[in-house]
Amino acid sequence: MSADNLSINLATVRAQWTLPQAVEACARMGIRAVDPWRDQVAACGLDTAMRAIRDADLAVTGYCRGGTFTAPDAAGRQAAIDDNKRAIDEAAALGAECLVLVVGGLPQSSRDIGAARAMVRDGLAALLPYAREAKIPLAIEPLHPMYAGDRACVNTLAQALDLCDQLGDGAGVAIDTYHVWWDPELETQIARAGRDKRILAYHICDWLIPTRDLLLDRGMPGDGVIDLARIGAWIAAAGYGAFTEIEIFSRLDWWTRPGEEVLSTCIERFEAI
Amino acid sequence: MSADNLSINLATVRAQWTLPQAVEACARMGIRAVDPWRDQVAACGLDTAMRAIRDADLAVTGYCRGGTFTAPDAAGRQAAIDDNKRAIDEAAALGAECLVLVVGGLPQSSRDIGAARAMVRDGLAALLPYAREAKIPLAIEPLHPMYAGDRACVNTLAQALDLCDQLGDGAGVAIDTYHVWWDPELETQIARAGRDKRILAYHICDWLIPTRDLLLDRGMPGDGVIDLARIGAWIAAAGYGAFTEIEIFSRLDWWTRPGEEVLSTCIERFEAI
Repeated sequence: MSADNLSINLATVRAQWTLPQAVEACARMGIRAVDPWRDQVAACGLDTAMRAIRDADLAVTGYCRGGTFTAPDAAGRQAAIDDNKRAIDEAAALGAECLVLVVGGLPQSSRDIGAARAMVRDGLAALLPYAREAKIPLAIEPLHPMYAGDRACVNTLAQALDLCDQLGDGAGVAIDTYHVWWDPELETQIARAGRDKRILAYHICDWLIPTRDLLLDRGMPGDGVIDLARIGAWIAAAGYGAFTEIEIFSRLDWWTRPGEEVLSTCIERFEAI
Repeated sequence: MSADNLSINLATVRAQWTLPQAVEACARMGIRAVDPWRDQVAACGLDTAMRAIRDADLAVTGYCRGGTFTAPDAAGRQAAIDDNKRAIDEAAALGAECLVLVVGGLPQSSRDIGAARAMVRDGLAALLPYAREAKIPLAIEPLHPMYAGDRACVNTLAQALDLCDQLGDGAGVAIDTYHVWWDPELETQIARAGRDKRILAYHICDWLIPTRDLLLDRGMPGDGVIDLARIGAWIAAAGYGAFTEIEIFSRLDWWTRPGEEVLSTCIERFEAI
């Protein structure tokens, strides 16, 4: 593995830099790919973001993020689909490899996770023709079960791949070690994802013990308990050879350090895996 | 459903009362069963605990808890088995229906969750003859995946039932809604558990949004997003008709309130499901 295959998810340095600043710093430090977030793009404007990424000659391994297909009523669900179409347009303008989807949790006041999952399936099916037309694959990201209520009711790789089977071409998965490392079926399901050509993105970060915050206490690779080398080998054996993306939300630690230190640590840890 | 089938896991009032106080309060409020913790029994002494529970004429739906089969070396694993045998003796003395097992997370300095899972299987197999002899079934409790690293590497009901299949008689599962509610396979696996006569205990509490602490912010039934009525119907359809146990760890809320208020709320919410 070489840092040539490293992509930086720009959430990792969101507290330190604007998108143009982050892109410039990545390029300066020899990083060859990024994955920007919609709010970062909105903050500087799409044209500025496109120009910054093009000037820095960076690949765009994904665009974060679409999804949120669950809503209490049909109007809300349609609004989500419309917004996802705009996200697809932006992803295409940025030359992104895929649109990463966090599918949504339970709608307000609902306890019916089965119904939420049906909304996700229907929302994906409604969005897919537009995504195919734009040649932006939809990367369903199974999220850790601790986010089932409020962020994403797709919580295992098997579940995401079952959705892909129903959807057909143009749908795949974003596999993030933070969300799936605990899964007893992980090796089997990664192999299945490879066979079916569904792996659109591979994200890494680490699980810290203790974890002090459900959302914003993710670890730098190497600082936690995830066997990143083993999972990376499964991903490689599944035929995925594109970029590995480091994505860390860390309010208490990495977001408080200088951006250059964060990036150089990412490079160092990535090379060490 | 009637409060006649309600059991109180004594962790729910651990901040307010000693075991004898909690047992007396439960009996006074018409509750007919409890599940004590080992540290609570140790604090008052086994004889005192036995007498308090017998005097109050309460059933003991489980004893919390054994497990922790994962350790860096063989001596540590043997020490765990020996300690589990003492827990079985105590459970038998208390007349408990089962010993609830939190199986252990990754051993110190390990990232090998597969090896940890093998330790759990081996530890259970080593303990089982003793448990059978004592007529104390071992209730494997799958814990939420957010505890895979530090508490229990058995994280789905399917995984726990696969272990039971390997172990044979004397092993079963404790199903806690907090840990399994998100599982896309939940209905199927509850039905499987019922067919195989593996359901030894059914625990309920609720998942709060937001959850402010990974361990100690569990919700009173009705205050969160878990569809307890639906899951309870699956449990009943699986043939489990014994006690439903309320178990709540709540440092910021229920542990700060008077014990009587906690118990009366448990009764009220249980009747409302």
